[in-house]
Amino acid sequence: MTFLFNSDARRGAVFAEAFAKELPDLPFAMDAATVDPDRVRYLITWAVPENLARYGNLEILFSLGAGVDQFRFDAVPANVKVVRMIEEGIVRMMQEYVTLAVLALHRNLPAYLAQQRAGEWCDIPQAQAGSRRIGVLGLGQLGQAVLDRLKPFGFPLAGWSRSPWRVEGVTCYRGDLGLVQMLAASDILVCLLPLIEETRGFLNARLFAKLPKGAALVHTGRGPQLDHEALVAALDSDHLSAAMIDVTDPEPLPARHPFWSHPKIILTPHIASVTQPATAACAVIDNIKRHRAGLDPVGLVDRSRGY
Amino acid sequence: MTFLFNSDARRGAVFAEAFAKELPDLPFAMDAATVDPDRVRYLITWAVPENLARYGNLEILFSLGAGVDQFRFDAVPANVKVVRMIEEGIVRMMQEYVTLAVLALHRNLPAYLAQQRAGEWCDIPQAQAGSRRIGVLGLGQLGQAVLDRLKPFGFPLAGWSRSPWRVEGVTCYRGDLGLVQMLAASDILVCLLPLIEETRGFLNARLFAKLPKGAALVHTGRGPQLDHEALVAALDSDHLSAAMIDVTDPEPLPARHPFWSHPKIILTPHIASVTQPATAACAVIDNIKRHRAGLDPVGLVDRSRGY
Repeated sequence: MTFLFNSDARRGAVFAEAFAKELPDLPFAMDAATVDPDRVRYLITWAVPENLARYGNLEILFSLGAGVDQFRFDAVPANVKVVRMIEEGIVRMMQEYVTLAVLALHRNLPAYLAQQRAGEWCDIPQAQAGSRRIGVLGLGQLGQAVLDRLKPFGFPLAGWSRSPWRVEGVTCYRGDLGLVQMLAASDILVCLLPLIEETRGFLNARLFAKLPKGAALVHTGRGPQLDHEALVAALDSDHLSAAMIDVTDPEPLPARHPFWSHPKIILTPHIASVTQPATAACAVIDNIKRHRAGLDPVGLVDRSRGY
Repeated sequence: MTFLFNSDARRGAVFAEAFAKELPDLPFAMDAATVDPDRVRYLITWAVPENLARYGNLEILFSLGAGVDQFRFDAVPANVKVVRMIEEGIVRMMQEYVTLAVLALHRNLPAYLAQQRAGEWCDIPQAQAGSRRIGVLGLGQLGQAVLDRLKPFGFPLAGWSRSPWRVEGVTCYRGDLGLVQMLAASDILVCLLPLIEETRGFLNARLFAKLPKGAALVHTGRGPQLDHEALVAALDSDHLSAAMIDVTDPEPLPARHPFWSHPKIILTPHIASVTQPATAACAVIDNIKRHRAGLDPVGLVDRSRGY
């Protein structure tokens, strides 16, 4: 049996070193051309390769990213387990980025940046953390990890998800009614939802209208979830106050797109969270050990849900 | 005996309400003209009033701010206790601002803001938190509180102060040699020093030269501690990578000052931390109760040190 690594050589070298140490009995390959397809039991990749069918004995298909929206599930045989990347590096980077974004919006950084560019020195009335309600869309591992970092600051915290969750210190909502309730009580809304059919265009004019006036948005989900025109309209009408956006559709944004120059938008180029090779290799190795021991891998995708 | 409140009426109203509830036996006055000066035992103010000598029975002079560098100590009789403002609101706001600033510099926000303005979409190599060393100048209550918020992110943390401190999880330095050692190991330097004679011009070319190449600065101390020209030179030579500056000298900055437009500087108008009337009133009331019980107030200034 063989582990096939289908990505760039720099990351591959980090994986190869970790596998040699932790799973010395498992051959590790980075060049599909040199491998007998029948021996491939594990494959890690960003997108599903065209010729996946040739790996007739494949047991686990690992995604290099936290999301699997880039996978065409219909090309993956039903008996193959699909596993998302859940690793310490991705989680830590997302905690950093969302904490940065929430604090930036809480402390009026977009308005202060506009003042700086205009040469104005003027303090803006500042809400205290205890009255700045944070609502997180998506209560999976990333959502819970992010809420954990926000807790010490004293923000009232809420989260919404499809599956019911209990998170200490967080008001948890679910379902359509729960969504409306949480939106009405979110001064800063953070989107960490997976991209599935139901979340395409989720951040739209109808949703923004349910937020309180002056609310702000952090978007670190996936680009196609956000209606760009609706966001600009909500900011220009002063219904929303500001946004920090890390993902867009398309990426990169085209020249002259309004996000580049909008004074209420801080834009970053999809850098919130990136798989870190060293910690990702550990996570994959742990999952192979779990699989060999008859346990489900961490991050196993429920194909009926799409994440 | 009387408590005299020498500041704006809005904050005074918050104090008056808290005093009426917690110290109903202590007359509270907001208009010096209506008070018998001999009855004034406690005075809270931003600057020392010209006519301080008329309050012959004054016991405690409270500063409305966390610093007392605005006080002329020679105008304050030696038997009067001088007390800095140490209250939950100031501490929380400083924790928020410094965490925001450290994360912004750690995640290359100044460079991404410049990219946004230029319409560029390009990721910048990202150091992980475990290799981003934070050094805090000043290990008093604010410094320790800030370090406490940074801890969960996994940054290696260090602090420097004149007095020796032990803070769990933080490498503590003191003295001239300790300063050089900490600077050499600080990728992000945070200044939270009080303004005294020895810290005037502290953040200068000599100090910047002792930081590693590519280091960044967060300045939330006092304006006169920073040599503006030296900072611009260190940024322009690429020795320092970026800075987030909340205090300057003078404030506001004059038109055409380089900080307004420097692409590596995020400038905010002295908003990092502001005394919050409700929590400040509680802190002052607690200190009066301590004083009446024969205890030193929290935040008692050592005039020989100046803070």
